[in-house]
Amino acid sequence: MQSTSETELTAILSNNKKALDKIALDFLPSSHSESTIAKLYDMMRDYPLRGGKGIRGTLCILWCELFGGNREDALTTAAALELFQNWILIHDDIEDESDMRRGSPVLHKKYGVPLSINAGDALHGKMWQLLLKNRDNLSEEMTLDILSQFSEMLNETTEGQQIELAWNSEGNWTIEEKDYLLMVTKKSSWYTCIIPSRLGLILSRAKLGTKSNPDLLEKLVPTGRDLGISFQITDDILNLTASESKYGKEILGDLYEGKRTLMLIHLLRNSSPSERQEIVRTLSKPRSAKSDSEVKQIFQLMKQKGSIDYAKQIALQYYKRSLESFERIPVGDSSSSKAAKNTIKQLYEYLARRDY
Amino acid sequence: MQSTSETELTAILSNNKKALDKIALDFLPSSHSESTIAKLYDMMRDYPLRGGKGIRGTLCILWCELFGGNREDALTTAAALELFQNWILIHDDIEDESDMRRGSPVLHKKYGVPLSINAGDALHGKMWQLLLKNRDNLSEEMTLDILSQFSEMLNETTEGQQIELAWNSEGNWTIEEKDYLLMVTKKSSWYTCIIPSRLGLILSRAKLGTKSNPDLLEKLVPTGRDLGISFQITDDILNLTASESKYGKEILGDLYEGKRTLMLIHLLRNSSPSERQEIVRTLSKPRSAKSDSEVKQIFQLMKQKGSIDYAKQIALQYYKRSLESFERIPVGDSSSSKAAKNTIKQLYEYLARRDY
Repeated sequence: MQSTSETELTAILSNNKKALDKIALDFLPSSHSESTIAKLYDMMRDYPLRGGKGIRGTLCILWCELFGGNREDALTTAAALELFQNWILIHDDIEDESDMRRGSPVLHKKYGVPLSINAGDALHGKMWQLLLKNRDNLSEEMTLDILSQFSEMLNETTEGQQIELAWNSEGNWTIEEKDYLLMVTKKSSWYTCIIPSRLGLILSRAKLGTKSNPDLLEKLVPTGRDLGISFQITDDILNLTASESKYGKEILGDLYEGKRTLMLIHLLRNSSPSERQEIVRTLSKPRSAKSDSEVKQIFQLMKQKGSIDYAKQIALQYYKRSLESFERIPVGDSSSSKAAKNTIKQLYEYLARRDY
Repeated sequence: MQSTSETELTAILSNNKKALDKIALDFLPSSHSESTIAKLYDMMRDYPLRGGKGIRGTLCILWCELFGGNREDALTTAAALELFQNWILIHDDIEDESDMRRGSPVLHKKYGVPLSINAGDALHGKMWQLLLKNRDNLSEEMTLDILSQFSEMLNETTEGQQIELAWNSEGNWTIEEKDYLLMVTKKSSWYTCIIPSRLGLILSRAKLGTKSNPDLLEKLVPTGRDLGISFQITDDILNLTASESKYGKEILGDLYEGKRTLMLIHLLRNSSPSERQEIVRTLSKPRSAKSDSEVKQIFQLMKQKGSIDYAKQIALQYYKRSLESFERIPVGDSSSSKAAKNTIKQLYEYLARRDY
């Protein structure tokens, strides 16, 4: 059973998700007299319609409230963050040769790779277009500052994705923990935590018409970086241990994809040379050549060698560090700031300790 | 031998290309201490370093001058147009399973599909980032207006690409000329002609600090649409008839890819049912299953049935129409406007009649 605060947090997430979905789905085109173009629109709406938790958009809203801003000023930008997540997942699923996303087949299994790459690009374009709608309510300067944050977010995310994909294409199995941490910071922390918090700060100034302090924008990096690391390690653990119906992706999918996770780094470090050779031999096979039993055996080894417990412990460490950095950030003492602060802390805990 | 005006035009294109390449290549990151990220940067610079003609950037500059603007004000935006062309070609080459681009193997033949999709996204992000640099020299309003044009351009281009890819994935061979014209207007005219001209108009107001007339932005559509159609038909003809070393792509590549071109529509329309069945049977095969001789036979049929001459004639019609619409656009009578007008007309002719 959920605690009271968990129930509250679930309600907040679900309310925000509903509001942001409405903005995104009202904004995305839905019908066209040309049937092929109508099909593109269906593809663009596919992932947004599948749900998701709306974590990034909610973080943006909460950070805006934390710094004394209005929730309404943040909604368009928060919805664009969710569009970012959706278009990049379309491409990510192709790049990783994933099977399932949010409980259904990935987009390219439904429509093929060529159309799906293009639909991702079209949705990407819609993200910028939605951000340009900020002009209607915010100053031109703020609209542009927000666009700059999205541009930085995309730089970081594509660099993180590159690191992970290059390990795969180069068959590199000698990854150390520091490599993994750099990769997840770039691939996950920036778009999941750091940029949503920065956007919240920028947007909190909308009603005042003043600019946020650039130093403060930089001060938001450590808490977001560490929370993102904790979040991604937890996500990787859930990929192995969650129940499939709740998680929405195929369980053990990361082992089929040969993903370099903290558990795998720990396992390889704690294996004999011959064990290591065998694990790498299995993981290096193309996805279709891996048998269920050999994949499960690697999972068993991870449990035996304490790799999963180890990863949980590191995730916890980063969660604690992120919370410490969060507490040091100077925020207002209005009742709405205090409420936002409390909710953000609950969300931090949920992200680092969730079970799906 | 080139005529004097051709030599002049070649010099103008080459000068602009050099200036725009410098802006783009100075802007794109080139080194990183992490070797995997440095590899991403190499991938992002790959297509920009391969050359190309700089047509879209040059059109933007010329239209800016046509309306009395300063060349310098247009350079950043013109360079971003070239980045658009480069990132979208990376994705396009994957979607079309192309082999060659500008005389070398396509990016995904060098680095694989996953890394190349991601590199396209990274370069796409850099395009928006470069456009945000307009803030340094232009008003915030103009910077945002330019971003809106890019957003519209991406909408149109992805819709056009969707139409063409859907024909392919659905095995649709009953395309009519009006379908083809809609597809190329969206896929080619918007980003090659219409948006570069609109951007030129917007940018021409930079020194005056005034806004361009929205009606005039709309009046630029017909000439750009028709020029783009003519340009794309010519490009499709060159894919069959050009010399490979000049054209930079594999000759007859469109037949291997099964592309629906005006020549193919004409050929199918002028074939007997049994001929039609045979042509469709060949073109429907996967690329690797097509023999050189059967592909060449379709090309011979196109020549026999007058399909190539027919396409040339339609391209010429659209070129003439685009020129008529162009002449009706009200422009200034300064010497620089007149010079720009003259060069644009030369460029129009080159685009519709070039041999590579």
